[in-house]
Amino acid sequence: MNITLSQAEKLISAAQEKARAIDCKMNIAVVDGGANLVAFARMDGAWLGSLDISIKKAKTARFFDMNSGEIGNLSQPGGSLYNIEHSNGGLITFPGGIPVKNADGEIIGAIGVSGSSVENDHAVAEAGASSL
Amino acid sequence: MNITLSQAEKLISAAQEKARAIDCKMNIAVVDGGANLVAFARMDGAWLGSLDISIKKAKTARFFDMNSGEIGNLSQPGGSLYNIEHSNGGLITFPGGIPVKNADGEIIGAIGVSGSSVENDHAVAEAGASSL
Amino acid sequence: MNITLSQAEKLISAAQEKARAIDCKMNIAVVDGGANLVAFARMDGAWLGSLDISIKKAKTARFFDMNSGEIGNLSQPGGSLYNIEHSNGGLITFPGGIPVKNADGEIIGAIGVSGSSVENDHAVAEAGASSL
Amino acid sequence: MNITLSQAEKLISAAQEKARAIDCKMNIAVVDGGANLVAFARMDGAWLGSLDISIKKAKTARFFDMNSGEIGNLSQPGGSLYNIEHSNGGLITFPGGIPVKNADGEIIGAIGVSGSSVENDHAVAEAGASSL
Repeated sequence: MNITLSQAEKLISAAQEKARAIDCKMNIAVVDGGANLVAFARMDGAWLGSLDISIKKAKTARFFDMNSGEIGNLSQPGGSLYNIEHSNGGLITFPGGIPVKNADGEIIGAIGVSGSSVENDHAVAEAGASSL
Repeated sequence: MNITLSQAEKLISAAQEKARAIDCKMNIAVVDGGANLVAFARMDGAWLGSLDISIKKAKTARFFDMNSGEIGNLSQPGGSLYNIEHSNGGLITFPGGIPVKNADGEIIGAIGVSGSSVENDHAVAEAGASSL
Repeated sequence: MNITLSQAEKLISAAQEKARAIDCKMNIAVVDGGANLVAFARMDGAWLGSLDISIKKAKTARFFDMNSGEIGNLSQPGGSLYNIEHSNGGLITFPGGIPVKNADGEIIGAIGVSGSSVENDHAVAEAGASSL
Repeated sequence: MNITLSQAEKLISAAQEKARAIDCKMNIAVVDGGANLVAFARMDGAWLGSLDISIKKAKTARFFDMNSGEIGNLSQPGGSLYNIEHSNGGLITFPGGIPVKNADGEIIGAIGVSGSSVENDHAVAEAGASSL
């Protein structure tokens, strides 16, 4: 089960709406079950460096089927997954990446958002992920 | 002058419409004047390998401000730009990448399309680029 | 629909049997529908440089849902896909990569073989792909 | 002395058996004395991001002829090998990678496992490594 482009566009639209509501300019990426990009949008004036980060957050969330920030809790110095970020061509392990599930609770992809504080990034990703 | 997300989405929408009209499943990428991704869409069932190619075609078109296929004419064995594909992290120099201009004729970005024959890829990119 | 590990192991076993029958030492890779590795085997004494080639052949076959050698026919100098090998982190476009289908004809992954002539590589990949 | 494919397959089989016994879905990689992949298996439903990690754990264990987690003890901030993970195309230095020895105690390769907690990853790798 993979997310469709139509679903991915719905996620990006909902995420953008949330971003505007909290006055943020975001990069928003959606990947499918194979962790490959399906849709992407960079809002006008959003940080350029957040382009890659948003995609890596989405991939990270699908790679391990959990929020990107949960990985970050384990990858700190002394943590059990210290420096896991060196795998898979580079992970981003702070908040903003969330797995996306269908109505049956199956993971069909993930969304990654970057462009503001990690709290805002997560909130915008959540708005996207919960829009299906 | 950079393409806006709103303009990029218009391009992607027009390109998708053309793709459906000629019964193709396409990857469609739009980059801005800095050759950085602004918007992307992978149509359901489109070749997975065309994801990267569509982005590289868009970048190639903006890197040199000409259609990607024009670079390919010069990069053949014995040509003046032989193997230029090794630069910039990998160029794609066959048709499907086209610079995007505003009403004043200024280049504001580029579109790259991949998923069918290079003729179809170019036609879909052209439909996008001319929609502004 | 993704290939299972059990199916992938069956492919690798059948491919190895064919390789021994024609007295070749092969690297054999199987990827799923997302072009991610599922199973791999390098036969004793097989070329080390064929390790990466076998994986890239499998990925190439799934990226474009056709035999890797078909891409190579189009990527020659003057061809419509000249230098497509620069995409997707490196393609291998000579024979030895074949999409794998289930009983319903749906593509569920791909197999890539490298270690001998391209004719032998293809024959061994074919033995694997047709074993499901 | 290098591990054979037959031995590598025996390791992967033993590791899978252990993984099933503790109800985990694992990625399992075996490299030879040259730190090059010999065999690999991704169990159905195993984390996609653990594919690369399992291979990097096996390589890390062979690169330094010790368990991957031992490197991690030295690579912490202030440690003597701080950020060694940046070498060799990316190391993974938490548990789950173990050198593999023959009956004479000579190192002939390494196994890397990823897909669960680092404790489970190590236990499954140990089950593989000790099966020769």
